[in-house]
Amino acid sequence: MNQKQLLRPVADAAALSAPLANYNTADAVEFLNTLELQRAAETLAALSLPRAVKMLEAPELHRSGELVAALPPARAAALLGLMADDRATDIVHELDEEERARLIPLLGNEARQTIQKLLSYPPNTAGALMTTEFVAVPATWTVAQTLQHIRQVERTRETVYAIYVLDPANQQLQQVVTMRRLITGLPEESILDVAQVNPPVMVDAQMDQEDVARLIRRHDLLAIPVVDAQQHMLGIVTVDDILDALIEESTEDAHKFGGMEALDKPYMQIGFFEMLRKRAGWLSVLFVGEMLTASAMQHYEDELARAVVLTLFIPLIMSSGGNSGSQATSLLIRSLALRELRLRDWWKVALREVPTGMVLGAILGCLAIVRIVIWQLGGFHDYGEHWILLAITIGAALVGIVTFGSLSGSMLPFILKRLGFDPASASAPFVATLVDVTGLVIYFSIAAMILHGTLL
Amino acid sequence: MNQKQLLRPVADAAALSAPLANYNTADAVEFLNTLELQRAAETLAALSLPRAVKMLEAPELHRSGELVAALPPARAAALLGLMADDRATDIVHELDEEERARLIPLLGNEARQTIQKLLSYPPNTAGALMTTEFVAVPATWTVAQTLQHIRQVERTRETVYAIYVLDPANQQLQQVVTMRRLITGLPEESILDVAQVNPPVMVDAQMDQEDVARLIRRHDLLAIPVVDAQQHMLGIVTVDDILDALIEESTEDAHKFGGMEALDKPYMQIGFFEMLRKRAGWLSVLFVGEMLTASAMQHYEDELARAVVLTLFIPLIMSSGGNSGSQATSLLIRSLALRELRLRDWWKVALREVPTGMVLGAILGCLAIVRIVIWQLGGFHDYGEHWILLAITIGAALVGIVTFGSLSGSMLPFILKRLGFDPASASAPFVATLVDVTGLVIYFSIAAMILHGTLL
Repeated sequence: MNQKQLLRPVADAAALSAPLANYNTADAVEFLNTLELQRAAETLAALSLPRAVKMLEAPELHRSGELVAALPPARAAALLGLMADDRATDIVHELDEEERARLIPLLGNEARQTIQKLLSYPPNTAGALMTTEFVAVPATWTVAQTLQHIRQVERTRETVYAIYVLDPANQQLQQVVTMRRLITGLPEESILDVAQVNPPVMVDAQMDQEDVARLIRRHDLLAIPVVDAQQHMLGIVTVDDILDALIEESTEDAHKFGGMEALDKPYMQIGFFEMLRKRAGWLSVLFVGEMLTASAMQHYEDELARAVVLTLFIPLIMSSGGNSGSQATSLLIRSLALRELRLRDWWKVALREVPTGMVLGAILGCLAIVRIVIWQLGGFHDYGEHWILLAITIGAALVGIVTFGSLSGSMLPFILKRLGFDPASASAPFVATLVDVTGLVIYFSIAAMILHGTLL
Repeated sequence: MNQKQLLRPVADAAALSAPLANYNTADAVEFLNTLELQRAAETLAALSLPRAVKMLEAPELHRSGELVAALPPARAAALLGLMADDRATDIVHELDEEERARLIPLLGNEARQTIQKLLSYPPNTAGALMTTEFVAVPATWTVAQTLQHIRQVERTRETVYAIYVLDPANQQLQQVVTMRRLITGLPEESILDVAQVNPPVMVDAQMDQEDVARLIRRHDLLAIPVVDAQQHMLGIVTVDDILDALIEESTEDAHKFGGMEALDKPYMQIGFFEMLRKRAGWLSVLFVGEMLTASAMQHYEDELARAVVLTLFIPLIMSSGGNSGSQATSLLIRSLALRELRLRDWWKVALREVPTGMVLGAILGCLAIVRIVIWQLGGFHDYGEHWILLAITIGAALVGIVTFGSLSGSMLPFILKRLGFDPASASAPFVATLVDVTGLVIYFSIAAMILHGTLL
């Protein structure tokens, strides 16, 4: 983009920002999302700084990184400096190395240091989500002093509803005061008189966002303080950041459970090749894994040639193993995410899944036997003279395969967690692939036992 | 439970509540969750009313309905009357008809009417989530009057951070004032002077909770007002209720996508038979659907007998269709839930999924052909004299099946939505079952075309 293009927006600023004049921020964001990138950046550049800041802070704005990168650098830096620091950091995260190197030196000292500090925390942690724009007052202040302070700083704080009281001697976080208690206090009262009686709930900057969400819910907070080892405040995570983070994480988990890499943009905004890349990877891995079924089948080719009737039930039996595994995996992924279960509880789950799987397998086994009996006796299909033994084989194989599916589907999230992976990486197709190969072996082994000397 | 048992807790109240004395609410709730039901109810009954109310209001308390049902009815009614009305309604929801009939008449007039009103809204709607405990003031008031009012009612309101300004003439919702703006106002200023400039964002009581969440996020609110057709306020939905509702909904959606009925309790607290019931239903339905594969295979039994080599690749080919369908379904479920796409966008998705599926199928097809060539030429397995035609058959079938899988997996959520079901009911196993039968037909049709006159 040359200098002329960068300057042009200023020329017809009025024309560009005109359609946005009557919109509230959310609607203006939606409008901006529909524009082509260059046009959207020009429109953004034409807006007043406070308006543009509000739009860039909206979690529903798409392509915020690309938009900032397309702005004149001085304007981009001015906007980043005025934005809430957590949101500015998110945007800087989306920039590539070159764009960062261009923009960061243009930022004010304070904004630059804050953003660089926040960038250093791993994604999906309290540190990455937090903002440093909170209200902190010394424990020696009165209610009136605190209220006066809040009136002055209100516009630059993400929330003023939780007030953090610091020990004046060592700056450690001592208490939390809620705004609702503060306004009920008498002006000359000490701030500590309206503080909560319980010690404040605090988190470490490295804590996973799901755990932060759990604590916020558990203690019904609007914000949670993030502290270092010396109990000095680093920032706060607010409930609306947690809400955004959880919605994003549910989408990512749903994509992963569907057996693909998580998309970071809405469906219609992903390029064709990016979409292919996100899907082809796992699909190919699963395909290569599933090739083992072809090898297993080759191993049993003689049996198959002798008893073609056995092949008729292969898809039915294999899918049942995959389905029961998929149920168990989705159950355990959520239980682990919600911390209802810990890693050490794996054996309790295993002890439960084995009988559950056996009963579920027996139910499906009975259905299969009934099906074969009706088709055979009703004359819909002839399964040969050994049809009773065949029905027993199918029924027994279903008990074995569904039990194995439930057990391995439930253990997979534990194993992934133990190996340091996200249990949510266990997808339904992954479990199905895992169970398919073993399912074939179980099926043919049971068939060999029951049908030996008759069909095989 | 007889009268003597009901009275006993009062006798050793001190002993029962002693272990809870040093806990904060969240820890006390966790402790209560570990107790056996009868013991937990006795402990709850032994606590002071305000303490017990706090614990019953905690979203992490399990079995809250059962606990209330196990309390002496007078105490249960007293607790329900003191609780936040939305949470009390949740608990009444969990009671059976008989328990409700016993408790509701014991409630005070106001609490009874509120709870009965809230019970009438369908689950997962704004009406079912809302509380009637909000702060509303007439537009004629000043900042000082409003603050004074809030100080008086603060303890009985779910939030005081959003103040709803009503038109004194007709009681319609006119404006919203945030606490942070209120405290910056001068005492004698009119409340309207510190109100937001934009008209308030409001929702209908019937609105789905996911839409409510979207609006709360979009406008960065702590609470959203629920109004009737005349713009009279019915209640508010707060961000923490939305957070709880979304976490619950993600769990339900994950269970459903895994192919089972959603559990409403943590894994270890579901009884063995309830767990079976939640899983056996869908598993059996899918199994009966999948039986069509056996019928399809029976139809091709002659071909199978002539070319056993074709069976070797059945699991591989079928699972690829299921996997690509599962990817597409998980993508579209989330896009529809987040309102990134509307029902009318189905054709845009279809136009995208067809080429995506074709390329993905071609990638897998190439992998399969390479596999067959290596095994054949490397001497690992002999696929017979027509192995080249076989490889082409497998490759072509994969293109067809993966395209069909992507297309039907992406259309399924739209179809469910169009029929009035939740798109999230489309599970990975459901898609796999749908694709499996068609996948077999595609495979054998392509085989018949390519291998006619040679193997078939």
